[in-house]
Amino acid sequence: MRTQVAIIGAGPAGLLLGQLLARAGIDAVILEQRSPDYVLGRIRAGILESVTVDALERAGVAARLHREGLVHHGIELAFDGTRHRIDLHALIGRSVTVYGQTEVTHDLMDARAAAGALTIYEAEQVSLHDFDADTPRVRYTKDGRQHELQCDFIAGCDGFHGVSRQSVPERSRQIFERVYPFGWLGVLSETPPVADELIYASHERGFALCSMRSLTRSRYYIQVPADEQAKDWSDARFWDELRRRLDPAAAEALVTGPSIEKSIAPLRSFVCEPIRFGRLFLAGDAAHIVPPTGAKGLNLAASDVLYLADGLIQYYQERDGGGLDGYSHKCLARIWKAERFSWWMTSLLHRFPDADAFARRLQQAELDYVVGSAAASAALAENYVGLPY
Amino acid sequence: MRTQVAIIGAGPAGLLLGQLLARAGIDAVILEQRSPDYVLGRIRAGILESVTVDALERAGVAARLHREGLVHHGIELAFDGTRHRIDLHALIGRSVTVYGQTEVTHDLMDARAAAGALTIYEAEQVSLHDFDADTPRVRYTKDGRQHELQCDFIAGCDGFHGVSRQSVPERSRQIFERVYPFGWLGVLSETPPVADELIYASHERGFALCSMRSLTRSRYYIQVPADEQAKDWSDARFWDELRRRLDPAAAEALVTGPSIEKSIAPLRSFVCEPIRFGRLFLAGDAAHIVPPTGAKGLNLAASDVLYLADGLIQYYQERDGGGLDGYSHKCLARIWKAERFSWWMTSLLHRFPDADAFARRLQQAELDYVVGSAAASAALAENYVGLPY
Repeated sequence: MRTQVAIIGAGPAGLLLGQLLARAGIDAVILEQRSPDYVLGRIRAGILESVTVDALERAGVAARLHREGLVHHGIELAFDGTRHRIDLHALIGRSVTVYGQTEVTHDLMDARAAAGALTIYEAEQVSLHDFDADTPRVRYTKDGRQHELQCDFIAGCDGFHGVSRQSVPERSRQIFERVYPFGWLGVLSETPPVADELIYASHERGFALCSMRSLTRSRYYIQVPADEQAKDWSDARFWDELRRRLDPAAAEALVTGPSIEKSIAPLRSFVCEPIRFGRLFLAGDAAHIVPPTGAKGLNLAASDVLYLADGLIQYYQERDGGGLDGYSHKCLARIWKAERFSWWMTSLLHRFPDADAFARRLQQAELDYVVGSAAASAALAENYVGLPY
Repeated sequence: MRTQVAIIGAGPAGLLLGQLLARAGIDAVILEQRSPDYVLGRIRAGILESVTVDALERAGVAARLHREGLVHHGIELAFDGTRHRIDLHALIGRSVTVYGQTEVTHDLMDARAAAGALTIYEAEQVSLHDFDADTPRVRYTKDGRQHELQCDFIAGCDGFHGVSRQSVPERSRQIFERVYPFGWLGVLSETPPVADELIYASHERGFALCSMRSLTRSRYYIQVPADEQAKDWSDARFWDELRRRLDPAAAEALVTGPSIEKSIAPLRSFVCEPIRFGRLFLAGDAAHIVPPTGAKGLNLAASDVLYLADGLIQYYQERDGGGLDGYSHKCLARIWKAERFSWWMTSLLHRFPDADAFARRLQQAELDYVVGSAAASAALAENYVGLPY
């Protein structure tokens, strides 16, 4: 089999790339190790930057997003028992949209099916070959039979644990990494959100985040030690702990209910350099991981994909490889700014087990400064809604 | 002997307090361990915030400052071979004044002499007594004879190593501290400054700062390991190393000459809480130390002194102790913001021996972000020229 672009991974990055290419008349096949239901079952981020919304519009999959997504003009930082609103829209004239990653994936899957484009699910033993030459190939096994996909380019959109990055010899890539000494215990519940906007709470007992997926579905997180187990957290224990970390008004307003998902995610910063290797292009989590505090993971994947789609379209429509040649450099400039912001916001809001008294006071001073200074609030806001694409 | 306020230390903090009190008709005696020449020989900071300039005006000692001081509307950040200007005045409408701490001290000494106020130099074995009661006393030895100074209040303006803070039982104070794994090797020379404004350079080999005291006197610094000795640095070695850390244009423009002072200062963050103990009030370096990167040391001392002078004037003129009661809290809010900024600017610009590759990339991303974002530039600027008093 032959295609122009072999896309590894049918998560939101791979699907978005496929859709942008399809609309430009470029043929792409997506290989996905898992089933569609497994992909849709992954509970992930839910905050879209305007750049991401633009990308989904360009991909023709923004109708339901605009119908059901919640536009948020601000966020709240809570500490010392008080909430402080960061008015994103007033500060920088832009906002974010609350719309779950699962919904984005759903919309992209539907669009891909409608376009009749090929996604091969449950493709096993995927391996990448000859991407340093002119004729890359992807081999995989499906229903017990070996297949080979020939292509011009490979897009590695298969996440942190995927095969794409690992196919590159270690001597050709440099890894930058930071593992945080805590994780996020997250609960999804069919309850109305505690507040109209997200609450980022910095508390003596640890960070907490009140997020949402819709007006009837809430997503809450609490910082827990890295070695904690989700099974040790009953719903009651979770709600108690969350309540203790919120300001009194939020604690009182909190509506609890049975969890419909409960899991612990580790927090990690990770960047691979470069992210282009001959005819292999990494995008999204395959290339970089951010801690979820700044809600940058999905958004960074979307901007990678936009750069990559533009490069491929330029290549096929204008026979100009300039966009592809600049891909790694252009993406990494944006990636590192998002890595910086995600690290900063994580550092600002979490309790670090090894923090000394001086570090704690710095954190308090920074919280006071951020909410009290228009310049510092604007710096937070412009990063949160997304730096220019 | 009796006075209303016993001031320990005749550095700029003690002298400024004395002058502000004298102009309000409040009697103060200053005790200083050293000689006037020793005090004037200390080479320290040279960047005054507008709050500090205002304080010196109020003290009636700003005439020469306005005549000889250099108003700087911007600073330059240099990295990757390029300089980026932070236009302080355009960003936030305020500027800083370059005027050496030695000159400030000189002007304050002259004013104190003109006012006929008493400063006892070379006062030895100074000890503080009964500041937790209504009748504090200060004992000292002068020319071999013991003396006692009775007073209403004691102002501890005797610096980091002074006796004032150490007179407070350890159980009554909490210390917050960070010692950095490097120092600044500074050279003073009778050469024209390399540029019109200060250059803060972040370089692979370490931080460098091009500062000045006047249009004919330069002050340069380079980051060196904490255990370095000034005697191991010939002038030639210093100029060579400085030149290597500057951008090509600055390296070429640098005019070198014999050093007239050369010394290494350690970098430290330090805060004592509280800074008021009964009738003893700490101000300036006696209460807190910042690394010199943000030029906050002298300025923070000036704002402490303003709060303290206001509190004492309120007490004597209106019989209202409210200002004194609020002294510690009000000062510490400003101190911690300056501590945060000084720590941040130090972290941004220096090379840390234990920094991993991820930390180095974050530093680069932050430099790129700070010079590329109006909000981030404004945040730097408002801290550099001084947060509101």
